Amino acid sequence: MKITIIGAAGMIGRKLAERIAQTGAIGGQTVDAMTLVDVVAPDVATDFTGQRVSYAADLTEAGVAAKLVADKPDVIVHLAAIVSGEAEADMDKGYRVNLDGTRALLEAIAGVPDYCPRVIYASSLAVFGAPFPTKISDDFNLTPLTSYGTQKAMGELLLNDYSRRGILDGVGIRFPTICIRPGKPNKAASGFFSGILREPLNGQEAILPVDDDVRHWFASPRAAVGYIEHAAMMDTAPLGAQRCMTMPGVSATVAEQIEALRAVAGDEAVALIRREPDATIASIVAGWPRDFDTVRALETGFRAENSFEEIIRIYLEDEMGQSA
Amino acid sequence: MKITIIGAAGMIGRKLAERIAQTGAIGGQTVDAMTLVDVVAPDVATDFTGQRVSYAADLTEAGVAAKLVADKPDVIVHLAAIVSGEAEADMDKGYRVNLDGTRALLEAIAGVPDYCPRVIYASSLAVFGAPFPTKISDDFNLTPLTSYGTQKAMGELLLNDYSRRGILDGVGIRFPTICIRPGKPNKAASGFFSGILREPLNGQEAILPVDDDVRHWFASPRAAVGYIEHAAMMDTAPLGAQRCMTMPGVSATVAEQIEALRAVAGDEAVALIRREPDATIASIVAGWPRDFDTVRALETGFRAENSFEEIIRIYLEDEMGQSA
Repeated sequence: MKITIIGAAGMIGRKLAERIAQTGAIGGQTVDAMTLVDVVAPDVATDFTGQRVSYAADLTEAGVAAKLVADKPDVIVHLAAIVSGEAEADMDKGYRVNLDGTRALLEAIAGVPDYCPRVIYASSLAVFGAPFPTKISDDFNLTPLTSYGTQKAMGELLLNDYSRRGILDGVGIRFPTICIRPGKPNKAASGFFSGILREPLNGQEAILPVDDDVRHWFASPRAAVGYIEHAAMMDTAPLGAQRCMTMPGVSATVAEQIEALRAVAGDEAVALIRREPDATIASIVAGWPRDFDTVRALETGFRAENSFEEIIRIYLEDEMGQSA
Repeated sequence: MKITIIGAAGMIGRKLAERIAQTGAIGGQTVDAMTLVDVVAPDVATDFTGQRVSYAADLTEAGVAAKLVADKPDVIVHLAAIVSGEAEADMDKGYRVNLDGTRALLEAIAGVPDYCPRVIYASSLAVFGAPFPTKISDDFNLTPLTSYGTQKAMGELLLNDYSRRGILDGVGIRFPTICIRPGKPNKAASGFFSGILREPLNGQEAILPVDDDVRHWFASPRAAVGYIEHAAMMDTAPLGAQRCMTMPGVSATVAEQIEALRAVAGDEAVALIRREPDATIASIVAGWPRDFDTVRALETGFRAENSFEEIIRIYLEDEMGQSA
């Protein structure tokens, strides 16, 4: 089968491509050809033994979407997006990339005769806005409070409608906050959730800008790739008309993150966390969801970690070369 | 103040324009200028004593939206839409008019400096899809099962985001099924809800294609105009980020409709209803909502009828010239 990954240069896209290169398959199905696309040519999965094509392309440019679907990939993974902060700062760009880009892809698929690919759409918890119940259920209303969340919610509605019409066979994945993100600290408001673990595990100081009782929803990068692998080959019939789901994850407080770090890496790692309250970050994070009841995703076979310790051990295995 | 009505040739647009012509005001505010636009030039409210402009224009054509907002109307009522059946039959046209047309209007408003008009957006119960609880609450999820409902839900999300950003001050109105629609029978699946009352009131036979226990959500054309009048001048602060609401109405079964007809017009009117079951219509209507708990709309001042008898008496007053 043929798979095309749009947004393949991002963290999840890279890991997905590398996983496919490593296993030669997705969801148990052999992958013969893999096309990797991003606004910069993705330089990953070069050891893939099947046919591998990689190029730079922007979904929002005329003709690009049609080119992407011309060879009828069986599975299309659509990860390309402008992130939350940039979509808020540049409204036009956010709508152009996150809404028009997605729609261009779906319209291009509609234009190919006798074709109904599996389309995996990266959505976000940002489709939900406060006020929240303690635990957010699968039928919680779409109430985005950012332009990014609005665009992702509109994409979900499109995915549902195009699936209902039989133009494509969509699965929408609302990713938890991915933790521990590998690499350098970034400026995202959520960055500290990874930073307070990643930096100490690498012997460096990390800053904690919020209170220890802040709670949020997490999964590992490995779980994120796992969602896509499952979505690629799952039976979509049980999803009915509602194709988009919040993914399972681990609800944890900052205090629980820190205790998991202590269990895995000891007091000396925890001592590297420096508390430096930041009212701005605290107020942003206060509007984020804390916990979910992901019955639909669990019943249809999606899995994540069971504890924050497991999330940390996955980082040690996947990013620091420690054996399981 | 200046008001612009887009979709002014439709049933609700005409009645709204005529009401403004009659009272010279909306929501207690004097209307100095009224612009009426539709794909055919609206020929209504010709007795309006203020400045009245009427022309044919299509929001989906380049430059039209910018022209509509160039004179900075204080209130814009956006009623223009492709209806459900046509949006399902012609997918491109539905998305072009219902989604792109709405977006063009909002974008044009964003392009006018120092401008933040009240925008009243006609949404629909079609943003909701089965399975339903017995009574649908204000926080029921957006689960459209038609392209029309998808487009209206996407428009709601846009209205919320553009309002949150301070580009406009939106109010989204999800209309109940309007009953009794004046005029001739039409081919809409919902047509019989008006037909079984309107035709007998005019001494004609009507066909009832569904069972007597079918329940649905109704309001009169007068109530529909009333929602817009209220939305034009209401305080939107209590709405917060969620600008779209299901409007109050009357939940009634077909049997209750018929008993109301009997109370108002007697047995001879009821005898004109002929039962002719239609499995296709019955199955479409089976997927429709039956009852709503419209707390938000009621708390923010929207009103409708309190009984089906009242709905019938309004038809007699407004369409058959009977005095109250």
